[in-house]
Amino acid sequence: MGNMEYECPHRVAIPPSKPLAKSLETSLKETFFPDDPFRQFKNQPLSRKFVLALQYFVPILEWAPRYTFDFFKSDVIAGITIASLAVPQGISYANLANLPPIIGLYSSFVPPLVYAMLGSSKDLAVGTVAVASLLISSMLGKEVNPNQNPTLYLQLALTSTFFAGVFQASLGLLRLGFVVDFLSHATIVGFMGGAATVVCLQQLKGILGLVHFTHETDLVSVMRSIFTQMHQWRWESGVLGCCFLFFLLITRYFSKKKTAFFWINAMAPLTSVILGSLLVFLTHAEKHGVQVIGHLKKGLNPLSVSELAFGSPFLMAAIKTGIITGVIGLAEGVAVGRSFAIFKNYHIDGNKEMIAFGMMNIAGSCTSCYLTAGPFSRTAVNFNAGCKSAVSNIVMATAVMITLLFLTPLFHYTPLVVLSAIIIAAMLGLIDYEAAIHLWKVDKFDCMVCMAAYVGVVFGSVEIGLIIAVTLSLLRVLLFVARPRTFLLGNIPNSMVYRSIDQYPIANNVPGVLILQIDAPIYFANANYLRERVSRWIYEEEDKLKSTGEASLHYVIIDMSAVGSIDTSGISMLEEVKKNADRKGLKLVLANPRSEVIKKLDNSKFIEKIGQEWIYLTVGEAVTACNFMLHTHKQNPAAIELQPQDNNIV
Amino acid sequence: MGNMEYECPHRVAIPPSKPLAKSLETSLKETFFPDDPFRQFKNQPLSRKFVLALQYFVPILEWAPRYTFDFFKSDVIAGITIASLAVPQGISYANLANLPPIIGLYSSFVPPLVYAMLGSSKDLAVGTVAVASLLISSMLGKEVNPNQNPTLYLQLALTSTFFAGVFQASLGLLRLGFVVDFLSHATIVGFMGGAATVVCLQQLKGILGLVHFTHETDLVSVMRSIFTQMHQWRWESGVLGCCFLFFLLITRYFSKKKTAFFWINAMAPLTSVILGSLLVFLTHAEKHGVQVIGHLKKGLNPLSVSELAFGSPFLMAAIKTGIITGVIGLAEGVAVGRSFAIFKNYHIDGNKEMIAFGMMNIAGSCTSCYLTAGPFSRTAVNFNAGCKSAVSNIVMATAVMITLLFLTPLFHYTPLVVLSAIIIAAMLGLIDYEAAIHLWKVDKFDCMVCMAAYVGVVFGSVEIGLIIAVTLSLLRVLLFVARPRTFLLGNIPNSMVYRSIDQYPIANNVPGVLILQIDAPIYFANANYLRERVSRWIYEEEDKLKSTGEASLHYVIIDMSAVGSIDTSGISMLEEVKKNADRKGLKLVLANPRSEVIKKLDNSKFIEKIGQEWIYLTVGEAVTACNFMLHTHKQNPAAIELQPQDNNIV
Repeated sequence: MGNMEYECPHRVAIPPSKPLAKSLETSLKETFFPDDPFRQFKNQPLSRKFVLALQYFVPILEWAPRYTFDFFKSDVIAGITIASLAVPQGISYANLANLPPIIGLYSSFVPPLVYAMLGSSKDLAVGTVAVASLLISSMLGKEVNPNQNPTLYLQLALTSTFFAGVFQASLGLLRLGFVVDFLSHATIVGFMGGAATVVCLQQLKGILGLVHFTHETDLVSVMRSIFTQMHQWRWESGVLGCCFLFFLLITRYFSKKKTAFFWINAMAPLTSVILGSLLVFLTHAEKHGVQVIGHLKKGLNPLSVSELAFGSPFLMAAIKTGIITGVIGLAEGVAVGRSFAIFKNYHIDGNKEMIAFGMMNIAGSCTSCYLTAGPFSRTAVNFNAGCKSAVSNIVMATAVMITLLFLTPLFHYTPLVVLSAIIIAAMLGLIDYEAAIHLWKVDKFDCMVCMAAYVGVVFGSVEIGLIIAVTLSLLRVLLFVARPRTFLLGNIPNSMVYRSIDQYPIANNVPGVLILQIDAPIYFANANYLRERVSRWIYEEEDKLKSTGEASLHYVIIDMSAVGSIDTSGISMLEEVKKNADRKGLKLVLANPRSEVIKKLDNSKFIEKIGQEWIYLTVGEAVTACNFMLHTHKQNPAAIELQPQDNNIV
Repeated sequence: MGNMEYECPHRVAIPPSKPLAKSLETSLKETFFPDDPFRQFKNQPLSRKFVLALQYFVPILEWAPRYTFDFFKSDVIAGITIASLAVPQGISYANLANLPPIIGLYSSFVPPLVYAMLGSSKDLAVGTVAVASLLISSMLGKEVNPNQNPTLYLQLALTSTFFAGVFQASLGLLRLGFVVDFLSHATIVGFMGGAATVVCLQQLKGILGLVHFTHETDLVSVMRSIFTQMHQWRWESGVLGCCFLFFLLITRYFSKKKTAFFWINAMAPLTSVILGSLLVFLTHAEKHGVQVIGHLKKGLNPLSVSELAFGSPFLMAAIKTGIITGVIGLAEGVAVGRSFAIFKNYHIDGNKEMIAFGMMNIAGSCTSCYLTAGPFSRTAVNFNAGCKSAVSNIVMATAVMITLLFLTPLFHYTPLVVLSAIIIAAMLGLIDYEAAIHLWKVDKFDCMVCMAAYVGVVFGSVEIGLIIAVTLSLLRVLLFVARPRTFLLGNIPNSMVYRSIDQYPIANNVPGVLILQIDAPIYFANANYLRERVSRWIYEEEDKLKSTGEASLHYVIIDMSAVGSIDTSGISMLEEVKKNADRKGLKLVLANPRSEVIKKLDNSKFIEKIGQEWIYLTVGEAVTACNFMLHTHKQNPAAIELQPQDNNIV
């Protein structure tokens, strides 16, 4: 190096290499414990640590001591309100899952109690959910006919609930909560909307009073089933259904207009049930084609440990149903819990929630409950009713207990069509077309994912919709890595800043220097593409310069600011780009390689090949250095042209 | 805005939104035509376009006119050299695939001719490959026993070759060549090594002269099979095998020492075959436990269109085998072709290669050939022998044709053990432990992928190894996006540059300002993680400041330079981070959002929420602005503290 060498003000640092165990520990911690749950255990005596651990796993121990009577008053009101929703919804959704109605009531008793102890959300109201109910009936119904073999079907439903709980709890314990993150917001919007549409379609059976109905859930099968049975439509049933649906929708409309009237909406389902039952009782409509619930057993949840069918030939179907419904339940529940937590400015812990959901379903499956989660509608009512803590779930459970012990005979005359109306009213709220329009405005691809999920669910099946949406979401991530953007950078006038010419049309080209930015980690999946793309940039630039007769190209600067990582394929790609550049008499310069990248470039001796002096801290410094070289050699440009293979031009 | 407002020198540009069709076109072009193959068609008359298109699809038309006699001389020598390798290798690999030996010879006749016309590589020598042969025998062998039902087995092998060809050609035509990129370099090293180990293990059957042998390929089964049959080992066979193996390895050692002696290595297999055959013929060893090839039919490839078993019940197995072997063949062939092209400084087109491979396999399957690709060993010999173009493949095919027409009876006494020795010698070269060590040095994760592929192949099966390796590679990409790094930035002394404190320990904190950098696109898969991670950074920083008694935190700057993309979940995450910051009385500031990100932030009204004046072109400018605000308010810090929710502090 002569004294003509440009003195670079800063050097790119190669961070000291950490020992393998240390860096493994760091990355494991970031992967599984990003929220650093052990923070509070630091520097505490052992006894305190034990109490903290207990409070960590059973949050009620943490907040119960601070619980006040004022809170209790609010929680009682909220609890009774959601109980009035829970009873008819429980019966309806059990009906949707093709399970005995009483199972729906059982499911609103034990799981809320378990959640109240273990859950970290103050607003979540526990209960059965429509989508999971639909999934159970469609997935298990394929294996066992619920009408022909109700006992086995019930056993499978309980077994799948057990596995859903085990799966949820293990996700939480193994800190794999991020699995749920792979259901993107767009997927959930589309999926929920599709499921709600399907559930509404299924309710046409109840509304029209049909006895036979298809077991398929797709639009085409349902429509065919309905229109081939037109002569069996029961107008009494239809009229009753439409009246109640109208009533439910009108009450919701009023509640939405004025949130102080939320209780109108909350009470409407129970009111419908009471009115419907009275009507049937008085008019004996059950003898004129209006189906009713019929006898409901009095008494609390019977134990059902012995019903879990681990030896059944359908065990695999039960496990599969459990895993899918478990994930869906978690995704909805955690998202709902999180939304309300943000509203009230507190934090919920995803992994802790998963353990709570898992435990409540395991406990539920042993006490005749089927899958429960945190339904949005019930949670919203709970929130509007002013709940202060999970105690509202305990109040709800108590109310349901009283119902189970004393009030079940009252539901004998409840018409099924009212239940259908309740389900439809709840489902129409889940078809969130405004969210879909918002997705379209902000991100076309997200909207596509959402529509794919919707169409998949409505025209295919719930599973198909889910698989399509998740695959599309993952493909997008892979495509981002497989086809990263590359940008041409230019100088922002009056600064040392270089930015994409696409984004900043005022940015100026630097003569003789091509500045490229790569926008993603350089991995095997994109190494070939990037090599071709970079050589195309060089080709196009040389072409342009040739046609305009400007000075020829001497330097190619690659801005690595956005390259977060590189693998061995990526390093080979850089080596090939360098060979390619050398062959054309161009000098390859790197700007701002990040710590992980520079470490690997160092390990693979690429830095030696390119020369440490050709790696700069910023694009600005790289350009300055290139310009310096260019002008020093202007007297004798051949010095550059003739020694294209030489690493050290000076 | 008062006159106390800091005047920002540059503004972040929101690029004009392109019409949907236009941006769709751009992204489709980048995804499928990154090499811009239509470039040369621009501004050409129609007739010229037609000629160019023909030359594009049939490259021989492009280079044949420039072909010289000097080239031809070189190609003849190279072609004869690789033919001497092709004949024994063809027979050996057909043996490995449990196919009649003659099929191996047929496969070195038609496919090279097809490739010579369509391929774009000048060095690739076409032929059967060991790994694909092994895959065929292990995958089809599961369905049909090649000894009990050789006709059906052969039909299935031809059918799978047909589908492999169709799959390869369609990948090329649909410009989906990047599918092959998902087999990373590390995967291929591990997979090839594992497959070579497995193939060597299989050859112990031939070396030890065993008649019965396991159909499994894993180490445990093979070892059990060998050691339970110790009494059936044939020493004659073993001795012969070891001698030839030693001969082959020693010749390779010499060739490696001096590349001018490459022909020793190239000729060694044919020499072994001749020596072995003579030995058996003279000593009548075939009657003493040394198995020989036996009768080989004279004549060229018979047509086999009618053998393609499209109606077979095993069609699905054939298709699956075809797709997997097709991908493996492509991955190896394209990688080999590319390596030698880089060596000789010319370019090969991945998609064109795929079409060539596909056409040669489709043609092959109709003329009694099984799957062919570009084996590394044969290509290396071709290259060393000084080939100049694909004409060497034509010469090889001609030599094989002569063999088929006149010389097949000479192979009657060729002992199988010599073929085993040839295969083992070739395979030992594929176990690239040096590459594995290099991977370990440069990238631990890549090394893990490589080892997983190796172990999976050796202890499980070829498919298991492949699935494990591909899954791990994809998981890595997903994990990169799911758990992006976040860095704390500091000021590099005497500059406006801000870099990670981890990488540059000299970088200084800015009092009152927390500067974070996010290192990946913000997608649904990492939105939750990033929200938690950012709030942990803030928490930790506040904790640190509290314990040291320094000034409290007022600004959080997020450097978005490395955030290439964002989706709706990501935008919600930013909104939540902003709410969170507001609640703590902190101001959120963004630096350098990229064009795609700023467009979406604009569409979703996030810019309005955060305030356009809080988005800066560089971290440096953002810090300057923050410092300006801090000092203007120093007289009355309560102005900041008391109005945490206010967007416009000034």
